[in-house]
Amino acid sequence: MTPSRVAGCPLCEDAGGRLVHEAAKFRVICAAEQGFPAFYRLVWREHVREFTDLSREDRAACMEAVSVIEQCLREALAPTKINLATLGNVVPHLHWHVIARFDWDSHFPGPVWAAAQRERAPAREAEVEAKRPALEQRMIERLRSI
Amino acid sequence: MTPSRVAGCPLCEDAGGRLVHEAAKFRVICAAEQGFPAFYRLVWREHVREFTDLSREDRAACMEAVSVIEQCLREALAPTKINLATLGNVVPHLHWHVIARFDWDSHFPGPVWAAAQRERAPAREAEVEAKRPALEQRMIERLRSI
Repeated sequence: MTPSRVAGCPLCEDAGGRLVHEAAKFRVICAAEQGFPAFYRLVWREHVREFTDLSREDRAACMEAVSVIEQCLREALAPTKINLATLGNVVPHLHWHVIARFDWDSHFPGPVWAAAQRERAPAREAEVEAKRPALEQRMIERLRSI
Repeated sequence: MTPSRVAGCPLCEDAGGRLVHEAAKFRVICAAEQGFPAFYRLVWREHVREFTDLSREDRAACMEAVSVIEQCLREALAPTKINLATLGNVVPHLHWHVIARFDWDSHFPGPVWAAAQRERAPAREAEVEAKRPALEQRMIERLRSI
């Protein structure tokens, strides 16, 4: 059986970012990744390594929550694109990146993990940040209802 | 309504890689990405931009197919980690990357989109490639049964 907490795992020991919502099986955090003002993560509560270590029911619940996050970002920010990923090469505790990307962000159209392509745009980042409280409120409401 | 095909979209006009399996709503291809011998993609047939442009039922079907691909890679290759992602910044036609990662691959533990960290290991890549026919056969059987 998978242990619920693993000593030394940063996502077992810490929130991993600013806590937005805590559900029974997962939490949603806002990541402090420089240059990406709408970078959220869904972190599964149990220390599970791979997506297919979840049951079919938990996979469905996980992706419906990821979809709520994506939908809230789309509605509030009209981003150029949403990026979804679960990698976990460094921290193998299941977490999903949900990132609103903009054609003006420093890395677009490259992935956030690739090299920067231009300078950051602090004024535009600030505009996105200003919209976070309202979109997170809506996200919490919708996550509570699924 | 989303058009089923968009002129100029590379994933509407071409398979996008070596075709492994074609289902009613998606296809699975093996990508020709240098250095990653078990890099598969699920490409949605319809030209859909974002994951949440799919219905809830289609999202579930999509992720169960992604899960089958992941599970087949895990069983056949025992990779260090599986990476899943849908980005689409360059080609905004819904496709999921399903990548078996190995601690010896050129980019590990970085994402495949980041900078290389070491030389490639052609002999180990060849070992993985040799396992692809059997794992793809199993993948096709399981994708047909979901």
